[in-house]
Amino acid sequence: MTVPAAGLPARVRIHEVGARDGLQNEKATVPTEVKAEFIHRLAAAGLTTVEATSFVHPRWVPQLADAEELLPRLGDLGPAVALPVLVPNERGLDRALALGATRIAVFGSATETFAARNLNRTVAESLAMFEPVVERAKQDKVHVRGYLSMCFGDPWEGPVPVAQVVRVAKALLDLGCDELSLGDTIGVATPGHVQALLSALGEEGVGADRIGVHFHDTYGQALANTLAALQHGVTTVDASAGGLGGCPYAKSATGNLATEDLVWMLHGLGIETGVDLAALTATSVWMAEQLGRPSPSRTVRALSHKE
Amino acid sequence: MTVPAAGLPARVRIHEVGARDGLQNEKATVPTEVKAEFIHRLAAAGLTTVEATSFVHPRWVPQLADAEELLPRLGDLGPAVALPVLVPNERGLDRALALGATRIAVFGSATETFAARNLNRTVAESLAMFEPVVERAKQDKVHVRGYLSMCFGDPWEGPVPVAQVVRVAKALLDLGCDELSLGDTIGVATPGHVQALLSALGEEGVGADRIGVHFHDTYGQALANTLAALQHGVTTVDASAGGLGGCPYAKSATGNLATEDLVWMLHGLGIETGVDLAALTATSVWMAEQLGRPSPSRTVRALSHKE
Repeated sequence: MTVPAAGLPARVRIHEVGARDGLQNEKATVPTEVKAEFIHRLAAAGLTTVEATSFVHPRWVPQLADAEELLPRLGDLGPAVALPVLVPNERGLDRALALGATRIAVFGSATETFAARNLNRTVAESLAMFEPVVERAKQDKVHVRGYLSMCFGDPWEGPVPVAQVVRVAKALLDLGCDELSLGDTIGVATPGHVQALLSALGEEGVGADRIGVHFHDTYGQALANTLAALQHGVTTVDASAGGLGGCPYAKSATGNLATEDLVWMLHGLGIETGVDLAALTATSVWMAEQLGRPSPSRTVRALSHKE
Repeated sequence: MTVPAAGLPARVRIHEVGARDGLQNEKATVPTEVKAEFIHRLAAAGLTTVEATSFVHPRWVPQLADAEELLPRLGDLGPAVALPVLVPNERGLDRALALGATRIAVFGSATETFAARNLNRTVAESLAMFEPVVERAKQDKVHVRGYLSMCFGDPWEGPVPVAQVVRVAKALLDLGCDELSLGDTIGVATPGHVQALLSALGEEGVGADRIGVHFHDTYGQALANTLAALQHGVTTVDASAGGLGGCPYAKSATGNLATEDLVWMLHGLGIETGVDLAALTATSVWMAEQLGRPSPSRTVRALSHKE
């Protein structure tokens, strides 16, 4: 049943991260042809932004080492489907541009500890590394998304001060990023914290139109946090088909918000997404079979048990 | 990290349903001494309302056939912990009163189909059955909660009109119920629907102070719906320790909202509950061992993996 609520947007753009953020965090390496079929099925289900892969060095992310083989298989999707790719540095940018990428993303950290562990750099050094990447991308009219991880809590530093996140977020925008994706990488955020960060960004001139939210369901909070962000005017929400990327039974659970759970809420609220939930669910059931484990998405489970 | 949000209550009373609604829907029948220890541990973790058992005929709910043996084991909890019990009819009321129950609950349906299937009566006939129960309870100064199931969707009837729910809700209050618990029994509701129902009740003079909400996580919506209810002024929320009562792997999943997931959100919002989350999580981990299956609560999984 569709019952709108006051003060929410009419339409939300879902930034689908399952093929990149999801598969990057799965133990199994998925064959290139399966990835290509996955992305084709996601697009056929109505998702218009499907993050496709990463040009991080294969040593760090062997699951996505086939980026050069994968992207050419997606050319038939045409311009209606945006296929951003993650690019860590200028070498990655070269590889992405050589394949005709028109949207890239850089991956920053709001905390020093995660920057050191994930990027082997300070936050300032990582921003310096992104600077020529973003500059050259903009020269080529390539759209740039700036991921900002650990925006709420950090496993080593604990709660992350809002002012610290705002500072790094503004630095990413100052580099030339077209949009930000604010990540609750360990899933600890609650709705007041989300609103406080969005308010602080707004006070610094960073409006909701340049912000995407990226919540993890590690503590079950992702949809409540999404509702809080929607109430604040955010219209771009990251999610992962079937909840890919966080095996709920493993200690390493990252717990991406499942796209199906998000779509159930958005459609229930009368918010347009363009997504065909049945087709998306069927895609996630198929992908779960490829991975040999059930989807952690509650909506996928509920709908597929009814089939 | 605690970050309050505007417009939310300072304190929420959690109505813990794990020992009754949870265990009633588990396949395994739990020994009486385990139930007693469970309820003692829930109370020790700070829960002040713990629904203890049901006086439904054992033929219908064999899992709770030991109500007469269980309640005397809880006498040492004293008046600080409310121990409501479910009572279907006058025979059940007699049994509950004989054991000194001071709080009871009746279980109604907003839809005719579920009333027919669950109560073998029309909605009107079920209200007539409750009438002497509530009347006699009130004479004995017993607090009466009225459960109203299928308030949003019904597996046979589909979406349930708000006006229909309001009509039955008012009838339960007219019988003398002190509070209502509005149930999303199949977990399909989304936040706009929640707010629409609460608004419609408010227009009929039923304020949030007489309403509890009872959400199921079948589609992952329970916490977002809870946030919407809190924003509407509701301060009583039903939840089940560890998410008991809905095995997420079974077709019959009911998917009660896990108390731990709720507490994580409430405490993150700076809302007092009186609950010690670590003690509650330890209780749910222990109960999961008794049942031989992992808790479906994401917070229980996240916190217990860190231990």
